Amino acid sequence: MSEISGVRIVGAGLIGTSIALALTSRGIKVELVDSDSRSQKLAIDLAGGVDVEEPELVIFALPSQHLIDVIEAEYALNPHSTFIDIGSVKSEPLRIVEGSKLPKAQFVASHPMAGREIGGPESARADLFEGRTWVLTPDQSSQRSLHMAGQLVSMVGATAVVMESREHDQAVAAISHLPQIVASALAMQLENVPEEWLALAGQGLRDTVRIAGSDPILWQEIIALNREEIAPVLQKLIVDLQKMESYLAGKKSDDHIGEVIARGRSARSRIPGKHGGKARDYSYLPIVIPDAPGNLAAIFNICASIDVNVEDLSIEHSPGQLTGLITLGLSSDGAEKLSQHLLANGWNVHPVRK
Amino acid sequence: MSEISGVRIVGAGLIGTSIALALTSRGIKVELVDSDSRSQKLAIDLAGGVDVEEPELVIFALPSQHLIDVIEAEYALNPHSTFIDIGSVKSEPLRIVEGSKLPKAQFVASHPMAGREIGGPESARADLFEGRTWVLTPDQSSQRSLHMAGQLVSMVGATAVVMESREHDQAVAAISHLPQIVASALAMQLENVPEEWLALAGQGLRDTVRIAGSDPILWQEIIALNREEIAPVLQKLIVDLQKMESYLAGKKSDDHIGEVIARGRSARSRIPGKHGGKARDYSYLPIVIPDAPGNLAAIFNICASIDVNVEDLSIEHSPGQLTGLITLGLSSDGAEKLSQHLLANGWNVHPVRK
Repeated sequence: MSEISGVRIVGAGLIGTSIALALTSRGIKVELVDSDSRSQKLAIDLAGGVDVEEPELVIFALPSQHLIDVIEAEYALNPHSTFIDIGSVKSEPLRIVEGSKLPKAQFVASHPMAGREIGGPESARADLFEGRTWVLTPDQSSQRSLHMAGQLVSMVGATAVVMESREHDQAVAAISHLPQIVASALAMQLENVPEEWLALAGQGLRDTVRIAGSDPILWQEIIALNREEIAPVLQKLIVDLQKMESYLAGKKSDDHIGEVIARGRSARSRIPGKHGGKARDYSYLPIVIPDAPGNLAAIFNICASIDVNVEDLSIEHSPGQLTGLITLGLSSDGAEKLSQHLLANGWNVHPVRK
Repeated sequence: MSEISGVRIVGAGLIGTSIALALTSRGIKVELVDSDSRSQKLAIDLAGGVDVEEPELVIFALPSQHLIDVIEAEYALNPHSTFIDIGSVKSEPLRIVEGSKLPKAQFVASHPMAGREIGGPESARADLFEGRTWVLTPDQSSQRSLHMAGQLVSMVGATAVVMESREHDQAVAAISHLPQIVASALAMQLENVPEEWLALAGQGLRDTVRIAGSDPILWQEIIALNREEIAPVLQKLIVDLQKMESYLAGKKSDDHIGEVIARGRSARSRIPGKHGGKARDYSYLPIVIPDAPGNLAAIFNICASIDVNVEDLSIEHSPGQLTGLITLGLSSDGAEKLSQHLLANGWNVHPVRK
């Protein structure tokens, strides 16, 4: 099948401009257009951009609800191209294509799972997709269209995962949208909590509500678009929380409280760890460090010098004290080796915990 | 008032043995007892331990529900001592003291907020409490008793925070027990999720359910003891989630969805940051690194060499790829400085985000 030599990108935001950067660095001809002339100009300044005649691929790099404004015109311009979108929820773009002249075989719905904390073409990076997953949901796409989409994914350094659009939307409802709602609702409970209580907060609370810091506008769009798949998983969670409420009221044996914690622990262990493998059983090595430049470096130097790879790490701080606790996730051999070296060098290492 | 010279610790687990280690290292005489002779022997081997005549302080370093088994005998042995406990919930020990011969003035309920992922005397560390908060709830304690408790806290390197027992229990319900229940219940929703969906999980899900890995037995005890304070905050959360459910059903404008996210974001920003101060506005610098020993060290060496302090950090991994994304939290000057140095040295640095 034909290879991609030219691409048209409609939408010069973070995603569109990042795709442009990645493709131009590989010698692909890219045309960037945006209804906002400032974004278009900035994106072209950053990523280059030429007129592309008959692009093999047209990318809709814009919010799904704006797809409807451009789809007919884009199809009319390039009736033989393959079209792909990049929205976080797949039902909406497919619905819009269904109601348009663009044949479904020529369209691939997709979702690049890359960071979106920063927006606009000025935040674009050629490596935004490197090592990331890019989900393709080619429900009714032709083999040729899927081949084109797969080429794009591999050219930007991402890994393609193919699934049905409905399954994608259910998956992200469970692993992304529900956690966002829960973190936000939990953080909301802190609205009227006295400051002195918040001063007692540990790393547990901080981790649990971290994603509550997400962008409300972006998330309102995502949640509203995927409401049908989120509703049942949210309902199920509420039922489970109501059960816990009844255990607190003493309506069942206290063992049920422990059962919720135990089931949560067991389910959590199903989340794969680093590199998509099964969650590895890291050994966690806590080290107390004075909070000053150089101390972290010293620890990582020792790691490198004895060939120990740091698989995971976290920093915890104590209120009112100038010390920090760093916890390294290591292989069990690595933890043993590092622990001995650090102790021998006078570091404040705690025993390894699994 | 008198100074502490001798302490009796009842319970030779992680907390009791760690207190013993911290105190003996300061020359305080410590007697360690435990109904489990193995624990007692191990703790004494580790921390030393002598017979202490008339200790100024007796520490109940055992689960609150076992306090009732030892309180009368301990009071009879040392009728002039000050007594202190270490349970995570303060209503229970106060209730037990109320029903005992031990005068309330001689008792200080307390809660050292130190890590408990590891158990048993073998996990004890002299520095377990260093830099940690230790809450004292001396509702009906005498000034002398409070003075004794304060001495203990400062001798083990912790920072005392004094509040009423009821307020403590409400505070930990909001900032610790509710987040635990929510993280566990959310993780439970992953029980039957297909593996392919879990492979799409990002750092957001991992952070949100991290504490779902907690010990079910320990948490069943804590939650059951504090049920009265947890119930109303859990109810409030359920009501807010039910409102979200009605927004998903389209019963109100979609703006309400964004409002939940926005209110959560705003409430989250009330959690104080490092060192008990107001949450600082760190600049976050994402760096893509090949996943091999030495790369982290190299980055921290550069930080140290240009005097940039790392305030926060996280590592994110992509499925199926041997690269990692490390994100450093830095002062905005530090981020600028480091970003320039890393770029000049060929590192794959993304633009700073606030």
